[in-house]
Amino acid sequence: MPGKTSLFVPGPTNMPDRVRQSMDISNEDHRAPGMEKFWHPLISDLRKVFETESGQPFVFPGTGSSGWEAALTNLLNKGDKVLSARFGQFSHLWIEMCKKLHIDVEVVDVDWGGGTPHDEFEKILSEDNNHEIKAVLITHNETSTGVTNNVSATRDLLNKLNHPALLFVDGVSSIGSIKFEMDSWGVDVAVSGSQKGFMLPAGLAISCVSQKGLEIAKSSNLPRAYFDYHDMMKVNETGYWPYTNPMPLLRGLREALNMMMEEGLDNIYSRHLFLAQAVQKATQAWGLEMCAKDQSLYSNTVTAIMVPEGIDSTDIVKTAYNKYNTSFGGGLNKVAGKLFRIGHLGDLNSTMILGAISTAELAMYDVGINFELGSGVAAAIKHLKI
Amino acid sequence: MPGKTSLFVPGPTNMPDRVRQSMDISNEDHRAPGMEKFWHPLISDLRKVFETESGQPFVFPGTGSSGWEAALTNLLNKGDKVLSARFGQFSHLWIEMCKKLHIDVEVVDVDWGGGTPHDEFEKILSEDNNHEIKAVLITHNETSTGVTNNVSATRDLLNKLNHPALLFVDGVSSIGSIKFEMDSWGVDVAVSGSQKGFMLPAGLAISCVSQKGLEIAKSSNLPRAYFDYHDMMKVNETGYWPYTNPMPLLRGLREALNMMMEEGLDNIYSRHLFLAQAVQKATQAWGLEMCAKDQSLYSNTVTAIMVPEGIDSTDIVKTAYNKYNTSFGGGLNKVAGKLFRIGHLGDLNSTMILGAISTAELAMYDVGINFELGSGVAAAIKHLKI
Amino acid sequence: MPGKTSLFVPGPTNMPDRVRQSMDISNEDHRAPGMEKFWHPLISDLRKVFETESGQPFVFPGTGSSGWEAALTNLLNKGDKVLSARFGQFSHLWIEMCKKLHIDVEVVDVDWGGGTPHDEFEKILSEDNNHEIKAVLITHNETSTGVTNNVSATRDLLNKLNHPALLFVDGVSSIGSIKFEMDSWGVDVAVSGSQKGFMLPAGLAISCVSQKGLEIAKSSNLPRAYFDYHDMMKVNETGYWPYTNPMPLLRGLREALNMMMEEGLDNIYSRHLFLAQAVQKATQAWGLEMCAKDQSLYSNTVTAIMVPEGIDSTDIVKTAYNKYNTSFGGGLNKVAGKLFRIGHLGDLNSTMILGAISTAELAMYDVGINFELGSGVAAAIKHLKI
Amino acid sequence: MPGKTSLFVPGPTNMPDRVRQSMDISNEDHRAPGMEKFWHPLISDLRKVFETESGQPFVFPGTGSSGWEAALTNLLNKGDKVLSARFGQFSHLWIEMCKKLHIDVEVVDVDWGGGTPHDEFEKILSEDNNHEIKAVLITHNETSTGVTNNVSATRDLLNKLNHPALLFVDGVSSIGSIKFEMDSWGVDVAVSGSQKGFMLPAGLAISCVSQKGLEIAKSSNLPRAYFDYHDMMKVNETGYWPYTNPMPLLRGLREALNMMMEEGLDNIYSRHLFLAQAVQKATQAWGLEMCAKDQSLYSNTVTAIMVPEGIDSTDIVKTAYNKYNTSFGGGLNKVAGKLFRIGHLGDLNSTMILGAISTAELAMYDVGINFELGSGVAAAIKHLKI
Repeated sequence: MPGKTSLFVPGPTNMPDRVRQSMDISNEDHRAPGMEKFWHPLISDLRKVFETESGQPFVFPGTGSSGWEAALTNLLNKGDKVLSARFGQFSHLWIEMCKKLHIDVEVVDVDWGGGTPHDEFEKILSEDNNHEIKAVLITHNETSTGVTNNVSATRDLLNKLNHPALLFVDGVSSIGSIKFEMDSWGVDVAVSGSQKGFMLPAGLAISCVSQKGLEIAKSSNLPRAYFDYHDMMKVNETGYWPYTNPMPLLRGLREALNMMMEEGLDNIYSRHLFLAQAVQKATQAWGLEMCAKDQSLYSNTVTAIMVPEGIDSTDIVKTAYNKYNTSFGGGLNKVAGKLFRIGHLGDLNSTMILGAISTAELAMYDVGINFELGSGVAAAIKHLKI
Repeated sequence: MPGKTSLFVPGPTNMPDRVRQSMDISNEDHRAPGMEKFWHPLISDLRKVFETESGQPFVFPGTGSSGWEAALTNLLNKGDKVLSARFGQFSHLWIEMCKKLHIDVEVVDVDWGGGTPHDEFEKILSEDNNHEIKAVLITHNETSTGVTNNVSATRDLLNKLNHPALLFVDGVSSIGSIKFEMDSWGVDVAVSGSQKGFMLPAGLAISCVSQKGLEIAKSSNLPRAYFDYHDMMKVNETGYWPYTNPMPLLRGLREALNMMMEEGLDNIYSRHLFLAQAVQKATQAWGLEMCAKDQSLYSNTVTAIMVPEGIDSTDIVKTAYNKYNTSFGGGLNKVAGKLFRIGHLGDLNSTMILGAISTAELAMYDVGINFELGSGVAAAIKHLKI
Repeated sequence: MPGKTSLFVPGPTNMPDRVRQSMDISNEDHRAPGMEKFWHPLISDLRKVFETESGQPFVFPGTGSSGWEAALTNLLNKGDKVLSARFGQFSHLWIEMCKKLHIDVEVVDVDWGGGTPHDEFEKILSEDNNHEIKAVLITHNETSTGVTNNVSATRDLLNKLNHPALLFVDGVSSIGSIKFEMDSWGVDVAVSGSQKGFMLPAGLAISCVSQKGLEIAKSSNLPRAYFDYHDMMKVNETGYWPYTNPMPLLRGLREALNMMMEEGLDNIYSRHLFLAQAVQKATQAWGLEMCAKDQSLYSNTVTAIMVPEGIDSTDIVKTAYNKYNTSFGGGLNKVAGKLFRIGHLGDLNSTMILGAISTAELAMYDVGINFELGSGVAAAIKHLKI
Repeated sequence: MPGKTSLFVPGPTNMPDRVRQSMDISNEDHRAPGMEKFWHPLISDLRKVFETESGQPFVFPGTGSSGWEAALTNLLNKGDKVLSARFGQFSHLWIEMCKKLHIDVEVVDVDWGGGTPHDEFEKILSEDNNHEIKAVLITHNETSTGVTNNVSATRDLLNKLNHPALLFVDGVSSIGSIKFEMDSWGVDVAVSGSQKGFMLPAGLAISCVSQKGLEIAKSSNLPRAYFDYHDMMKVNETGYWPYTNPMPLLRGLREALNMMMEEGLDNIYSRHLFLAQAVQKATQAWGLEMCAKDQSLYSNTVTAIMVPEGIDSTDIVKTAYNKYNTSFGGGLNKVAGKLFRIGHLGDLNSTMILGAISTAELAMYDVGINFELGSGVAAAIKHLKI
């Protein structure tokens, strides 16, 4: 099909030319002298993104889900229990991974579109007198429903109850796009990936681990090899890796971090909020509901829009892709057919978001949704004018 | 500024990834054996674009304007007179070039927004009993006003009058996007460039010359060297160039022609018409006028939109660029401040055109033009739904 | 430093322009319709490289070592014993990984430079009457010493003894460069990576598993999640991944396989032998020894050259890199300081190998090794003339 | 053919990754605001390369030969006479261009391999009492014979004779690689191209014109349009071009100049001398002659090597290309079949030059030249050791 395929999924995101160019290199000798001059500043900039002073970033070939596994196998011991809530596809998948790794996971099920059930968590944690729950797992931004959770509130709860559970956070679709405060929230492992706020292709798991977490990892007894934090740290400190590292992605990460530092993290977060609001206002103008139950849960990186009864949201996604060369996200699992998603994270601006909104109108019009044509664009323009 | 800079100028156009990738190569030995296997099929495909059986394509490092010069210096003789009309910036510039090259040019001035003045041409040509006029110069698509001229009608006029003048056509912003029939229109030189319908960066002049033109060039006496058609032909026939040729652009041209053949030229022309109509309908919905005086002159590659009294169109272009990271074209020369232009040629689709229209709304709203927000997008969507 | 950094390490290898270009793309929607049309032919071509009819290829974000882990955790059960030999750094690391994953590994230590100790293996396996040894682990090509093992002989041994142990093979630095016959050798898991014979950057683990292995994996009880073969298979069959996949590397793998099929696998293997012999002949001409103990063990992908007493091979590698912008491999672990390695695998030709040999001469001359200048090049040229 | 095609022609040269990456960009709006911030520093850095304070650089889409034409048509008048010497293919072509442009050129023929015939020039100029000779044309580096001329001596001659002729210099294969002193040599027009010392693909003519030359161009009466210096200057001063400019090549030129400034021009010139000497020493070791008649004429950018009687040098070039994937230059015109050329300019280092020398040995051995194998490499290594 002619023309660019427009990409409005909640990851992978639109890659800036600068990042793409930086990866378009010849293969390099990964054991060449002096790699520490490349690696140490990169680690230092990653700390800024995670907002941590003492946390230890890890970057290894893998995906966000491999980062989940590293968190679990490094910081937990055989027989450990963890607490989590399921309110979307990605919280669901992390829970399923715990089971596959023989970890005892206590699950609180929440209506999809909801967020962390702090009341139920409080009940469970306050009854956990023996502190059998060793970790609480939070999906910061649930990509499948467009819900952002209040991690700070979870930390406050643990503090209030004096519960020593570790705090594990999946920040795959938030970190780099939505403010993330590893240190002030007392996060022990934060997990992200390269293909969202970091504006790269998929292929790198990017994590950060607290000193407390690293100390525990020294003696934890779950089997692990490729994902072993201390094995990585020992070699990484010298600027190298325990294996052949994917230099193009690392060169790309370097350039992405350059761009992030140039724009300023707070400006990036404000921009994401601003663009998200344009999509929210368009949704309101169309007379449609969002999957997120409450405004306090609205995500700045992805908006999940409920379609009216009688419409299959899959048709919107297929129509947009097959007829108009544009990728939106569909509904996954429980919400399949019920919603479509507009990703609005990474290297994005007002013109691009107007392209997304107007193409959403085109696809919705095409599949027969009843709404005032142009209304979403008009509402967005009023918001976007600066 | 974050996000992609959206490009809606009437050239350079949006480069497809495939074309960009094809040019991202190591330097090559331009005298390596076997280059004719690359060059001859490329020439053959260029003939298809020009719709010619016997015309001779030329590709050399330069711009469209260098192609104009090659046409003039190869096919004319000292003291020759040519006829042209001025109805926009690019017809104006070609006329000025004639003067610089000491060619006697008779100019018919037309209101900008108008097209070829066939009545006046008929008068002039029919009075030219001694056939002093050796060539008629037509700008097929006047990029500055969004006007496409009827070259076929010019040919008919010459035929009707039995006037032997050569027919020179500037097809820089039409060829590859708007149907061009070199043979059936009896064009003697057609001039184009790489950065419009061919979807490449600027840097190549792409022309085609009739056998009649080539015959004349053998004995014509204007001084020329770099632009000499026969010097190029002699070496090109073997697959090489009289100088070091720019292989990346040629590799890109190969890939662009592959894409054009895959889509099909007629499909490309239909797509351009279809997308142009979306912009035209949006313009009507906004209640604005087009610079082109008559629907029969509407260009499929660029639309020039008149702004209301009291508005400086330059502000729209600057606002779009400086605040919203989007490039539109401004008004040039006589129409400076009076119009802005949306380029819609090359590798473009409905989503991209909706991005252009909605951003035009944003910029017009920003500078205070009075129109119904969303109306252009709504009109375009009704048209674009397939 | 000016000029290209020449890359003669045994991976990552020199990336062809075609492969590099194919990865230089915009981010793609990894859930776009129709991905199976991309994936199934790619799997089919991978089967040709592994020389298997029924084996199941797996490609996931990771490294060769992550492929080792997937092999171990999918096909083994708690308490299983495996047999392996240590004769270099990479066989050593795989053995160490077994230990980290709580797998009982019986190790036969062999002088570095030696190969699979089939006599000792025969003794151990023939005494293993209860078939407690569930798998034999072979490093096909030991990259650290330039030794290629006879996997076929290991299979013959198992057959002769009627021992049911699975056969796991690390083919990271052989597959795609040295003939590998998964089916005829009865290999149950073959592990490779993207950065050697596949001519890509690091970042993909590329494995192949026999149907027998897959059957075992269905019920094996070691904890695993990210590396679970059946989880991948279930989703891969539809053309998708259980996570966001690294499309650029996959597009690159597609183009690399295209190139491999165009050249022909047997031609590739012959070319590797031919170029390896040039390095071997140069080494002989210099009067130096190879680390590989016997000609039958000589690797076609990497040559490890012993330096004379009194010379630290690290100086050669550093001199080549720091003064002459060329990367060779150094000695690892037990052979640190004692040898340097010339990688000669992937997209390589005679001119490139002459560059490697002549630069090795320059670096050896620089650090004071006594040999006849030009002698290695002369010997290589006599061999390389075709 | 597998492996990289090695490029040792005297242009186009090996493009650094940084330069290649910088050109791998989306198309840009060439009329975007702020282009002067890009253009003025670029012009300023070009002045450093030409070693001029007041000279005016010009960069336009074209080739070195188009730069020749611009020099002639801007600075000369109808009927003007120029003086030049023919000692190779490129001096020959410039002379032929004069004739095509109806310029009266007095030619001194010199044996190919020789340089500027200052004695004959002195005779001709001293007899030119009426100063009918308006310009002297010098090919600084004659690429076809590997001869570098002493431009300073030509200036001294003009000064000694008080002859007011302008000094035009073709520096296509010297500027950026061999020290060029526009101001101190009193050069009026220096012509270069993008594909040699500037390490880019072909496609840009890069020239520099003295203030005296610009003053003359204001009133000179040869017809010209595309090449008109003052037309360019007027628009260039604002950061723009009279036409659509080839942004990728300009972005590449920016990065090439960055690299040149980082290495330091004097270091670049020393490196070229150093690498040229390696090739010269190899040639001596082979027992072959150079085309350049005298050591004072040896070029630092290209060496033309005479083959023995009975050998056709074309066979060496074809053998190297067809069998070993390496490009050397052949003999042109009068020296066709008699010599082959090794280009050693641009982004080159010792390892690369050893690749060239050893492959030259391979090709010479293949076609049956009698020489000691390895001798050239040995001689080069002794020289290259630092």
